[in-house]
Amino acid sequence: MATLSFTCDYCEGAHPEVLKRLAETNMEQHQGYGDDPYTRSAVQRIRQATGCPEAEVFLTVGGTQTNATVIDAMLPHYEAVLCADTGHIAVHESGAVELAGHKVIALPATAGKLNATTVQDYLQAFYADPTWPHMAHPGMVYISFPTEYGTIYSRAELDAMVQVCRCYNMPLYIDGARMAYGLATPAADITLPELAARCDAFYLGGTKCGALCGEAVVFPRGNAPKNFFTIVKQHGALLAKGRLLGLQFDTLMADGLYLSLGRHADELAAMLRRGMEQLGIEFYIDSPTNQQFPILEPRHRQALEGRVLYEVWQELPGGRAVTRFATSWATTADAVQQLLSLLSNPAAEAR
Amino acid sequence: MATLSFTCDYCEGAHPEVLKRLAETNMEQHQGYGDDPYTRSAVQRIRQATGCPEAEVFLTVGGTQTNATVIDAMLPHYEAVLCADTGHIAVHESGAVELAGHKVIALPATAGKLNATTVQDYLQAFYADPTWPHMAHPGMVYISFPTEYGTIYSRAELDAMVQVCRCYNMPLYIDGARMAYGLATPAADITLPELAARCDAFYLGGTKCGALCGEAVVFPRGNAPKNFFTIVKQHGALLAKGRLLGLQFDTLMADGLYLSLGRHADELAAMLRRGMEQLGIEFYIDSPTNQQFPILEPRHRQALEGRVLYEVWQELPGGRAVTRFATSWATTADAVQQLLSLLSNPAAEAR
Amino acid sequence: MATLSFTCDYCEGAHPEVLKRLAETNMEQHQGYGDDPYTRSAVQRIRQATGCPEAEVFLTVGGTQTNATVIDAMLPHYEAVLCADTGHIAVHESGAVELAGHKVIALPATAGKLNATTVQDYLQAFYADPTWPHMAHPGMVYISFPTEYGTIYSRAELDAMVQVCRCYNMPLYIDGARMAYGLATPAADITLPELAARCDAFYLGGTKCGALCGEAVVFPRGNAPKNFFTIVKQHGALLAKGRLLGLQFDTLMADGLYLSLGRHADELAAMLRRGMEQLGIEFYIDSPTNQQFPILEPRHRQALEGRVLYEVWQELPGGRAVTRFATSWATTADAVQQLLSLLSNPAAEAR
Amino acid sequence: MATLSFTCDYCEGAHPEVLKRLAETNMEQHQGYGDDPYTRSAVQRIRQATGCPEAEVFLTVGGTQTNATVIDAMLPHYEAVLCADTGHIAVHESGAVELAGHKVIALPATAGKLNATTVQDYLQAFYADPTWPHMAHPGMVYISFPTEYGTIYSRAELDAMVQVCRCYNMPLYIDGARMAYGLATPAADITLPELAARCDAFYLGGTKCGALCGEAVVFPRGNAPKNFFTIVKQHGALLAKGRLLGLQFDTLMADGLYLSLGRHADELAAMLRRGMEQLGIEFYIDSPTNQQFPILEPRHRQALEGRVLYEVWQELPGGRAVTRFATSWATTADAVQQLLSLLSNPAAEAR
Repeated sequence: MATLSFTCDYCEGAHPEVLKRLAETNMEQHQGYGDDPYTRSAVQRIRQATGCPEAEVFLTVGGTQTNATVIDAMLPHYEAVLCADTGHIAVHESGAVELAGHKVIALPATAGKLNATTVQDYLQAFYADPTWPHMAHPGMVYISFPTEYGTIYSRAELDAMVQVCRCYNMPLYIDGARMAYGLATPAADITLPELAARCDAFYLGGTKCGALCGEAVVFPRGNAPKNFFTIVKQHGALLAKGRLLGLQFDTLMADGLYLSLGRHADELAAMLRRGMEQLGIEFYIDSPTNQQFPILEPRHRQALEGRVLYEVWQELPGGRAVTRFATSWATTADAVQQLLSLLSNPAAEAR
Repeated sequence: MATLSFTCDYCEGAHPEVLKRLAETNMEQHQGYGDDPYTRSAVQRIRQATGCPEAEVFLTVGGTQTNATVIDAMLPHYEAVLCADTGHIAVHESGAVELAGHKVIALPATAGKLNATTVQDYLQAFYADPTWPHMAHPGMVYISFPTEYGTIYSRAELDAMVQVCRCYNMPLYIDGARMAYGLATPAADITLPELAARCDAFYLGGTKCGALCGEAVVFPRGNAPKNFFTIVKQHGALLAKGRLLGLQFDTLMADGLYLSLGRHADELAAMLRRGMEQLGIEFYIDSPTNQQFPILEPRHRQALEGRVLYEVWQELPGGRAVTRFATSWATTADAVQQLLSLLSNPAAEAR
Repeated sequence: MATLSFTCDYCEGAHPEVLKRLAETNMEQHQGYGDDPYTRSAVQRIRQATGCPEAEVFLTVGGTQTNATVIDAMLPHYEAVLCADTGHIAVHESGAVELAGHKVIALPATAGKLNATTVQDYLQAFYADPTWPHMAHPGMVYISFPTEYGTIYSRAELDAMVQVCRCYNMPLYIDGARMAYGLATPAADITLPELAARCDAFYLGGTKCGALCGEAVVFPRGNAPKNFFTIVKQHGALLAKGRLLGLQFDTLMADGLYLSLGRHADELAAMLRRGMEQLGIEFYIDSPTNQQFPILEPRHRQALEGRVLYEVWQELPGGRAVTRFATSWATTADAVQQLLSLLSNPAAEAR
Repeated sequence: MATLSFTCDYCEGAHPEVLKRLAETNMEQHQGYGDDPYTRSAVQRIRQATGCPEAEVFLTVGGTQTNATVIDAMLPHYEAVLCADTGHIAVHESGAVELAGHKVIALPATAGKLNATTVQDYLQAFYADPTWPHMAHPGMVYISFPTEYGTIYSRAELDAMVQVCRCYNMPLYIDGARMAYGLATPAADITLPELAARCDAFYLGGTKCGALCGEAVVFPRGNAPKNFFTIVKQHGALLAKGRLLGLQFDTLMADGLYLSLGRHADELAAMLRRGMEQLGIEFYIDSPTNQQFPILEPRHRQALEGRVLYEVWQELPGGRAVTRFATSWATTADAVQQLLSLLSNPAAEAR
């Protein structure tokens, strides 16, 4: 049996339809830097899918560069970005936001989510402190949808956050690296247009949702920072062969493919979860999307040794561990069954 | 009765001896940028006072610029600085360290102090996480001596911190904005040479310890980053009339003046504290230096209204408040007596 | 007749072999961030092709981000990078190097090339000026091979530059965005290993030489800045699906493909040039690589109107213009013939 | 005979009146960071002197930090600052503006001055180049008044520059490190209010015009960037004992002292010049302010050896040199006479 990987949602290449179209259009000649018909079409499709006819859309390559570019473009230096202490910009971007000159203020999160009340309390305390002009000013709220723990914000939670942001005149920025999985789960009570209407900027993740690479930054109401094209270039996030990004998003955003990839992955994640629960495995967190966090016993880990790849998030006493299993558009029901089968008969398999 | 201010330790100008020498030497002609006899003499005195004959010393203007310059000079961008969550760089520098491109990692502090164990635990967890190459690397430990809460590290505590830093090959940098008060208190069990021997860089604060402005950055073992002069210039921290800084430190470091100013302020702070305690006032923190943090009742605050200035650090329920009273080289015993007198007979005075 | 584009060397997708292998390996599961067999193989191939068995190789996405990352990683902030005033970092990167905190010092170039004597003269004058500690220090020499004008440095010219760099203890960094075209031309008197032996860092361009995207940064003697992986991440230049870069370079560097693509483009550029010269067209610069700079008359421009795309570099009086025609691995002899045919009979065609 | 220094205009301490008032007010207690009566009074005096009742005024410590702070505050990162190639920010600030992330575009200057036509030509060429979105955008014009060569812009020259700036919607920023000398010379045909009315930001230099340190940044029409106080702090340019700056400017701006200091220095510079010209000494540049640039012969240099300090700006063949002699508020007619006397009888003195 070959090794299976549930390590992450970018273990495979691109969705076959993406690759097919790349091949079909490969020898066409197009201008660079996004001035090509596929990028133009992708922008139109994104405007339609988000219900934002005046949206300004920019295609970038990866998540970290996108976050640093957008945050730096939207804030003066003395403004900080508020986020969950488990947020990607606070943890796994090597200080990219700080490299751009901005403080990241990490607030306590619950299951990966930042609560509107937490933000409000922070802001009240901040402005109640008479020394606030000597501190980095809170300038933006950053949240991930879904979060780094697979959880999602409800419409009510987003509304509460929007309320706080409006009250303090701060933009709300949503990191949608895994947006497809967040919108497609039955647990979601919000659509893409509803989400777009609630924030000032967000990106639709391509890399983790079926593309080889690429993220689509959306300023939903024509509110892109002036000369954002040049800003993207200065941050090293402008791709010469923009067609590579354009064609991928043009494909993903056509015929509901983006959300259907998300739905597929979410369903297999739910299948994985149900199967594990039936085996008595507990979960660290209640995630309705493509990332699942089972707490594995030593016997489980032994059973998977050399056969299944996954991430260990936290070692626990006694050889147990919080782990992460991610599904993607490429995960098959068969693969999940194999995984469950290995877990269900640890002794036999471990021999 | 005139208003008294205990707001901070930079309410007055400079120690009279400093001003006297500024006047005496005013019409002398000297080269700029630290190439003057007073700066040279100050450097020698600092080498002697720190017991570091090979120390490299640079005079800068203020604390925030000094911290940003030193940290940026000593670390590559991807390295972060670890500090107490109450540390000046984490709170009151408006994101100056981040502006220079570095993440500030604020760890939980006790009474303003960062514990070596806290740092060690952080480092162990950091390197145990297999994703650490994707995170900002811990590159330096920053502590304040005394801390923003007036407390000081014992020799044993510093030794423990040094041990952790050596183990992880990280420099230890000490912010000595109020160094005079920290070294002069009877509670200190460490001398300036002993402190210098335990860290990789520190600064002797002038602004808060008798000068009009100025901080003296010391690299105790000739270990200044290459071309630090140019780095200081690029960070906007190089003063044209370097003699202003040189002469001030030449004066402060002569004949033990620096420490004697610290001792004076610490003694008056102790007097203030004893007096308040006798009036039944509780203290938020046990500080042996020039900053004291009494918890004032409404009647106390009323008694001081319009007569005494101080800082409110935290409003408590029922009109009580954690406050800060700072003494300095300029504080007189008479001023402390007036303060205590106002507090001892609130009703009478408040009429 | 369809429109032909000679606008640039990134008008098409990827070389078919690259695309073929992307398709073949698409469903394989691999770890992200360069921890995959194709990246490992690409690194080995690059080590072999450069004759540098100890080279450290990092795959990044695009040229601007690569330059900013490498320069920032190799220099402290107060060090500037010297380059030709026509150099890419000086002109067309929107200030990306400055965003990373470094001054770009543009020196006069001849036909896109920076002369070693120009650099030496600058350095001598710099250090002869007693105020040099107040200036940004020259810290690195950046050259492009081939240059932005298609020209290449001879071995002797490189040797002279290396000599100056060694003398002043400065690294030499080569931007090889179009390296394939520079090495493959018969005019080149230097090989890749010889070039690698002469510099401290360089990159092999993928984007403009057959890949969809990607550049390969090479530190030829194991001299990568410490933790360069994290530096790349912090600069937003780390691709999640590193396999996309790895597989492309693995393909391009196999069986001499990279150089053979360069040779093809250079040959067609020479054909284009000879053809134009026979039509009496003058050239702005004598380029032996894939970029040609004919000076077109109004009748030529009219003849190409709506049929052939190219870049206008400089409008001249009387409707003439310096233009750029770029060939690539994808250019066909037939396309060049069509172009020449249009030019040879302007009147007829312009009807 | 003691050594005389004409090296620069910051060889002495402060104007005696400044020092006198520092001594008189030394023991007063005031709030920090500019919240003191002297700063408030200084701001009022500056508003009056500039004829800008709504001016926003901020006191900073030194020129380099001021330039970096103002430029960074007024421009987004992708905008560059245009200046004379002899401008202070282009040459003598160690890359401070670039450290803040901005490109400095140095244009050819004549006698230290940037011509409006030069700027206009640059801008026209810039926007005529279709690749301009890939370049750092010109965002501001920076000029020095007087320039680094002692020359001044006429009203007509300023008007022409303003015209270009308005046309391209760019602010005009004036570095007034030596403003007193520029306004006080009979050659000036513009007043401070007229200058203030023509630019968007400027600073009145204190350090080089009678203060120990300090510059006064003026946004003449209430057009300071939002939260500029915090921006100043983040850039390390906020002085704790703001009174030191406030009192100095309060003194300098009272009773016309600032301009009278400028006039004194300009008159002595004119005397120095006339005297040298009578001795047959040529001048490198025609400066009407306190900096003079005589071209000294070897016999002159020998005569001054060990007796007079001055700056050598450029060594010429045959031992000649372009030199700089600066006068200040502290220069005496007697000192100038001694200098001229030494030069007039070189042989005798050199014995």
